[in-house]
Amino acid sequence: MDQKRIPFNKPYLTGKEAHYMYDAVYSGKISGNGKYTQKSQAFFEDRYGFKKCLLTSSCTDALEMAAILLDIRQGDEVILPSYTFVSTANAFALHGANLIFTDSREDHPGIDENNIEHLITSKTKAIVVVHYAGVAVDMDKIVQIANKHNLYIVEDAAHAIDSFYINKKNEKIPLGSIGHLAAFSFHETKNIISGEGGMLVINDEKFQRRSEIIWEKGTNRSEFFRGEVDKYGWVDIGSSFLPSDIVAGFLFAQLEHLDEIQEIRRSIWNTYYKNLAEINSCKFDLPRIPEYSTNNAHMFFLVCKSSEIRDKLIGYLKENHVQAVFHYLSLHKSPYFKNKYKGKKLYYSDLYSDRLVRLPFYNELSYPEINEITDLIREFDEKY
Amino acid sequence: MDQKRIPFNKPYLTGKEAHYMYDAVYSGKISGNGKYTQKSQAFFEDRYGFKKCLLTSSCTDALEMAAILLDIRQGDEVILPSYTFVSTANAFALHGANLIFTDSREDHPGIDENNIEHLITSKTKAIVVVHYAGVAVDMDKIVQIANKHNLYIVEDAAHAIDSFYINKKNEKIPLGSIGHLAAFSFHETKNIISGEGGMLVINDEKFQRRSEIIWEKGTNRSEFFRGEVDKYGWVDIGSSFLPSDIVAGFLFAQLEHLDEIQEIRRSIWNTYYKNLAEINSCKFDLPRIPEYSTNNAHMFFLVCKSSEIRDKLIGYLKENHVQAVFHYLSLHKSPYFKNKYKGKKLYYSDLYSDRLVRLPFYNELSYPEINEITDLIREFDEKY
Repeated sequence: MDQKRIPFNKPYLTGKEAHYMYDAVYSGKISGNGKYTQKSQAFFEDRYGFKKCLLTSSCTDALEMAAILLDIRQGDEVILPSYTFVSTANAFALHGANLIFTDSREDHPGIDENNIEHLITSKTKAIVVVHYAGVAVDMDKIVQIANKHNLYIVEDAAHAIDSFYINKKNEKIPLGSIGHLAAFSFHETKNIISGEGGMLVINDEKFQRRSEIIWEKGTNRSEFFRGEVDKYGWVDIGSSFLPSDIVAGFLFAQLEHLDEIQEIRRSIWNTYYKNLAEINSCKFDLPRIPEYSTNNAHMFFLVCKSSEIRDKLIGYLKENHVQAVFHYLSLHKSPYFKNKYKGKKLYYSDLYSDRLVRLPFYNELSYPEINEITDLIREFDEKY
Repeated sequence: MDQKRIPFNKPYLTGKEAHYMYDAVYSGKISGNGKYTQKSQAFFEDRYGFKKCLLTSSCTDALEMAAILLDIRQGDEVILPSYTFVSTANAFALHGANLIFTDSREDHPGIDENNIEHLITSKTKAIVVVHYAGVAVDMDKIVQIANKHNLYIVEDAAHAIDSFYINKKNEKIPLGSIGHLAAFSFHETKNIISGEGGMLVINDEKFQRRSEIIWEKGTNRSEFFRGEVDKYGWVDIGSSFLPSDIVAGFLFAQLEHLDEIQEIRRSIWNTYYKNLAEINSCKFDLPRIPEYSTNNAHMFFLVCKSSEIRDKLIGYLKENHVQAVFHYLSLHKSPYFKNKYKGKKLYYSDLYSDRLVRLPFYNELSYPEINEITDLIREFDEKY
């Protein structure tokens, strides 16, 4: 018997992945910064107006590049949400930053914009926002705070491909284009995937030259290949942040079908929402998309009224061979950080840690399967 | 006209790369630590007796994991050769180490074992050796020095797959199994490739648990999936060092043909050597393999009698559509480091920077092509 008839995630193929991977191999260049790396970077620059894009081995790597570019050193403070993936924190901790965790919003797991300013000190260097589930943080407020205190903004846009902030003039601004730097993920659970993979977006021009150097292991190799210098050497610290062009080939095949993928995912999201709204449950809340954000249908989550309900719901779905999962655990309470944390209780971060549940979400999830899942949730709602 | 009839490098396919990449995709798990990651790691553990292996996105990443495991901090000193790739240095510099560069051997670009001990201070934490061209550093001497001064040994084995140190008892000890930690590369120019890619070997048991945590972004996720803990969380600093299982699938296809690949490469190396020895040139020296090392035929290089001869030789081959290249530039003289360097002149490091030339080397290089290259070198030798 298939124990997970409906898994939480299934990687999706558009069809040309193998073709492009093979083409990369036969082109004779499968290390980083090959044809498909450049095509993928150009895709993002053209479509979203990102100033400069560099593919990386992971979103984690992109965040580490951000920490190096911002010259994060021992004692610098970085403000970030506690309800996020460990990489948001690790990237800055690895370079000696003191992590200043803050809370999520009441209506959404994203950072609470009104819970930042009192944490700023003379040592604060950056605010790292996470567009949780692809839903925008209120970026006008963040930009205002950052400008006032002369801070850098890093957008952790791991979930946020093809999502937008809607400003007061009703303009749609692509997420990832607002911060000085932004990081995207192409991990197998994301809308667009390459197994592991990520991208750094460099919007502030002053970081552009150095970003390329750090990416190329601290060398000016890219300038050399463009003929701008006559030899290349070690000019800065850096690492190997480039993915193989095989991985970039896989990614580019996905990017060519971005609109189609987004349409499928929005349709899945809307079906979930419609079915679950009909239940009108007092055991869980549906996700809320604030008026200043679009919905890129990265995930579908419920927020249960208690951790007990959440755990029972996951258990009930599991008994019925549907894999639902919880998500982050507040980082300020983690084994690594709990003794270092000096701040106040982060109510909503803990609430989402205890109560949020993510439902299966992948492009091949069929309508009958969604209906089956939402019927199970209805049964659960009635039974417990 | 084909400008580079004989390129310096061509990635080689064994045949099953696409099959395994596809299998990884269809298995539904293309992020890190999937089936092919585990098969590849087991291959190395079984074949070479490495205690624990973890695939990484690059050899650079493996070296960074080493720096994190050794808990390298601001002010720690690390001794390493100046004649090496930037990543050997960057990995430790990124974590605040002071880099103490030393010289190469007279007979070989590897670290001069007799030029280490006087550099050791109370701050020295590790010796990083590089098995240049897959030729062993004299590891008995290194181990003796490290034991005497209580230092860690990291083997940068980027070039050194399937190569061995031959000790006094005539035992062949696999390179990568001697240091506390070792790093391998599967970059497209190596004997075994995956585009970009690397591996950390953890020989010292005390690093094994933490290595897995750092690899998994500072979480104890691996223990969770083995059922050793009932939930996983943030327990340490870390990063995303895992390659996609697509990349691991490519790698595993190569590993299945390691013996065949090594046989081809040794044959190419021997043909180069035989042809070039016949020239008996006074313009260049042939590579020397010390009695304490095997030859894994990673590359074929010449050491010219002057930088002028080297540059002319590269130019002559280029005119004839053969791509030969120089290699490292002494790191202590790099734009990044020259003002930081306080040590003495590193004569042999500079000599190899100025005079070493690498000839085309890839598995599909035919005997007629090798003969053509060595004939061109003979012509050059006679003409200039």
